Amino acid sequence: MSKTYAGNYFEDFQVGQELLHTSPRTVTDGDAAMYTALYGARFALTSGATFAASMGMERMPLDAMLVFHIVFGKTVPEVSLNAVANLGYADCRFTAPVFAGDTLTARSEVIGVKANRDGKTGVVHVHSIGTNQHGETVLDYVRWVMVRKRNESSPAPETVIPDLPSVVSPADLVVPAGLSGTAYDAVLAGSEFLWDDYEIGERIDHVDGMTIEEAEHMLATRLFHNTAKVHFNQFVEQHGRFGRRIVYGGHVISIARALSYNGLANAQTILAINGGTHCNPTFAGDTVHAWSEVLDKVALPGRTDVGALRTRLVATKDLPATDFPLKGEDGRYLPNVVLDLDLTLLIPRR
Amino acid sequence: MSKTYAGNYFEDFQVGQELLHTSPRTVTDGDAAMYTALYGARFALTSGATFAASMGMERMPLDAMLVFHIVFGKTVPEVSLNAVANLGYADCRFTAPVFAGDTLTARSEVIGVKANRDGKTGVVHVHSIGTNQHGETVLDYVRWVMVRKRNESSPAPETVIPDLPSVVSPADLVVPAGLSGTAYDAVLAGSEFLWDDYEIGERIDHVDGMTIEEAEHMLATRLFHNTAKVHFNQFVEQHGRFGRRIVYGGHVISIARALSYNGLANAQTILAINGGTHCNPTFAGDTVHAWSEVLDKVALPGRTDVGALRTRLVATKDLPATDFPLKGEDGRYLPNVVLDLDLTLLIPRR
Amino acid sequence: MSKTYAGNYFEDFQVGQELLHTSPRTVTDGDAAMYTALYGARFALTSGATFAASMGMERMPLDAMLVFHIVFGKTVPEVSLNAVANLGYADCRFTAPVFAGDTLTARSEVIGVKANRDGKTGVVHVHSIGTNQHGETVLDYVRWVMVRKRNESSPAPETVIPDLPSVVSPADLVVPAGLSGTAYDAVLAGSEFLWDDYEIGERIDHVDGMTIEEAEHMLATRLFHNTAKVHFNQFVEQHGRFGRRIVYGGHVISIARALSYNGLANAQTILAINGGTHCNPTFAGDTVHAWSEVLDKVALPGRTDVGALRTRLVATKDLPATDFPLKGEDGRYLPNVVLDLDLTLLIPRR
Repeated sequence: MSKTYAGNYFEDFQVGQELLHTSPRTVTDGDAAMYTALYGARFALTSGATFAASMGMERMPLDAMLVFHIVFGKTVPEVSLNAVANLGYADCRFTAPVFAGDTLTARSEVIGVKANRDGKTGVVHVHSIGTNQHGETVLDYVRWVMVRKRNESSPAPETVIPDLPSVVSPADLVVPAGLSGTAYDAVLAGSEFLWDDYEIGERIDHVDGMTIEEAEHMLATRLFHNTAKVHFNQFVEQHGRFGRRIVYGGHVISIARALSYNGLANAQTILAINGGTHCNPTFAGDTVHAWSEVLDKVALPGRTDVGALRTRLVATKDLPATDFPLKGEDGRYLPNVVLDLDLTLLIPRR
Repeated sequence: MSKTYAGNYFEDFQVGQELLHTSPRTVTDGDAAMYTALYGARFALTSGATFAASMGMERMPLDAMLVFHIVFGKTVPEVSLNAVANLGYADCRFTAPVFAGDTLTARSEVIGVKANRDGKTGVVHVHSIGTNQHGETVLDYVRWVMVRKRNESSPAPETVIPDLPSVVSPADLVVPAGLSGTAYDAVLAGSEFLWDDYEIGERIDHVDGMTIEEAEHMLATRLFHNTAKVHFNQFVEQHGRFGRRIVYGGHVISIARALSYNGLANAQTILAINGGTHCNPTFAGDTVHAWSEVLDKVALPGRTDVGALRTRLVATKDLPATDFPLKGEDGRYLPNVVLDLDLTLLIPRR
Repeated sequence: MSKTYAGNYFEDFQVGQELLHTSPRTVTDGDAAMYTALYGARFALTSGATFAASMGMERMPLDAMLVFHIVFGKTVPEVSLNAVANLGYADCRFTAPVFAGDTLTARSEVIGVKANRDGKTGVVHVHSIGTNQHGETVLDYVRWVMVRKRNESSPAPETVIPDLPSVVSPADLVVPAGLSGTAYDAVLAGSEFLWDDYEIGERIDHVDGMTIEEAEHMLATRLFHNTAKVHFNQFVEQHGRFGRRIVYGGHVISIARALSYNGLANAQTILAINGGTHCNPTFAGDTVHAWSEVLDKVALPGRTDVGALRTRLVATKDLPATDFPLKGEDGRYLPNVVLDLDLTLLIPRR
């Protein structure tokens, strides 16, 4: 019997199945520093312990996207090792802050399967949960992937497509325990603009661009224990679809989020990812720009100190975001648009 | 009103103006490890906690240049986002050691402005201070930059050029609290040569060379929260002056300082940067060599255990330092000389 | 007298000589994170503090290979700065776990010298020991290197070749203090296969490949304080034997060990390196694959909870390991085989 793990194929997934993800991962100040070196994010809540304390946090939390990547990475071996594409995210909520020294574990439940007509692939929905060493859920989300079948002749399972919210309900958003927007120092945070100052429909060009190097996206992807093969093996990928390694989509998310500091500096953390699409692949040498659109302004139940902005975060490659590029006249994403993410961000109110 | 921050232009600076720099930055063991990976510095005081303890320090301090870069990076958005060139440093003193877990904040005061005759730019002098979470000043320096004007037609301000010392006075040098050179283990530190063994005028070729990669200088520059655009965006820079990203000058300083271990291994920390010039730009693919000249031997007031060496630290690109390259017959820096830095280094005495 | 250190030449080594290695090195969570980013190792014992606790460890130990590289790096200046080749390892034992915050120091004793017939080089055997801040030995090994002579005319010393074991004796293997294989959670560790499930002679293709970038191997090698020149200086190496920088052999070991998780996920730590050869040089751009062969199954004295597997770990460049490539018909290593390492791995028993 083979000692190596080949990952699950479409036939291996059944609705209701529990997937335990392996190798709990202790996240440390070291991971946070590596994350800073990779993306340069400057949000004050996750940059300075004194600032976090001024917002009521006993300790400085880790960047929400670092937590996302680590939990996501944990799910790759059992969920997407044989995936053709990562199709989408839904109902992703950050439910508790994570601190240096915490150990994250992940598990998933299969909540949807649907065979594709091509007979070669199927779509699998999984509900994944990341927990800390106290058993608290820190991250809860659904993603769906297109996975290869082991055998084209395998019969199609009964189709199950889960009912998913298009937006996380405000009642389900969790403000990090202890965090307060009272006595908030906007100037020190880097921008005078708070929740009250943004308007629905407003679009923001985040101005700066960041060029990706092979070493960077591989360092990131390994840091996250993400084992998807297409990111690492040029010997194989030279003969693949693109002739080169593909950058982990989450790497682009983190670059875009870091760039969004310029225009959304007070959006201190991510409360939810409502949905998202990796519209086109990204490669080393590409320069990422980003822009945001305010989709909604959300009052948080019982809170007047902080509110939420629902934003679309779009990233491009080799195309500045000045004109807010998104889709062509045919309704399809432009070829240089690589990310269209629907976020709910926490931001202090006046 | 635009939500994004465009940085200050020459017209925005007035003498006496206070600039608060944003996003306090907690520096950790993670940053120290990243710094080691980037430069490979081996000075014993900042490498081994046991060695730091043997020199009287309760905890191992972080590398002085890491502190410099983080404070410097904090100043970039308000000082040099629209700079054409970083012209010089003066009177830079490291006034307290920084330890893992400390949070650094920076502020600056504009102390000089001078419009250039071209009508397009001006020179701004700023006095910057980095403080820790206790409010102690850890770094104090002046730098001046050439900054673009917003409008060529803007009137020139009254010229103010601050009076700056060419060398930090010995009375202003601060030996890290607790540090002692008594019972110093030179062999374990990596060299038998102490303060007494160096001669004024002595020049040292630091022998080794280090080739720079794009991923490395960008990891470094993001780690330092330095947002200067020219370091990151190949899409724009391909059409720029050099056709490529420019390496942050501080990256070259740290490489040269790390190389200087071979010849100055006992120069455990930097007390002051008296001045410095980034003579020519550096790019990925360049190999940096370095050499030092002992400019002065400074007795520290009241100390017989440690002294100071004032050194010139020169870095080159693609040119070994065997012949101590510096300037041509025309008195100008040779094209392969990239750094000429005037340092005051702490070193134990016999 | 030159202030710089030129390293030892063959004439400088005498049997019985003690070499003290410089700059004690405190290893931290930051180093561990950097190591994860560089290699992506997922062994549960060194990934999650909760998992380490479930195996009886009060704290999560650092990866054994990180310890190896740091001690090895410490020995480079005095042992192999003028080496032509790193010829082999023997009797390498990991004798105590290392934790974040520990400070490692290294010393070596010369235990063998033999002049080569070419008159230009000689072989030096050193016995190196790494200790922590409590004076405990954490790593103990012999390596031998081919070192340049300073002068071809120097007389040959009396040949001494130490008697070295081909395999570390089971009685000399040290299970980390506190570690227990009772109540071991194999599923969470990532594989159902324990000591009992492997057979002598069994070969495992570790499937995945990892492409090396210049930035990565240089970050690694600097992190380890390894100063061997051939890894860093493209300006010199462009005229060297290969026209390019050579990747530190230990970088390849760590990649191969990380890849071996797929097939040996429960081989939680390395107890010994019995021997090893860097068969061919590796360069940036090469993609490393790996395979293992079970050479022996070793019962550990007095233990029924954990056992040891002696394995051969082979790494290739630009050649998948499907067919277990090793040597040609001429008995020589194939040109794409870069590593042949003989390891003793700790693995829980049923």
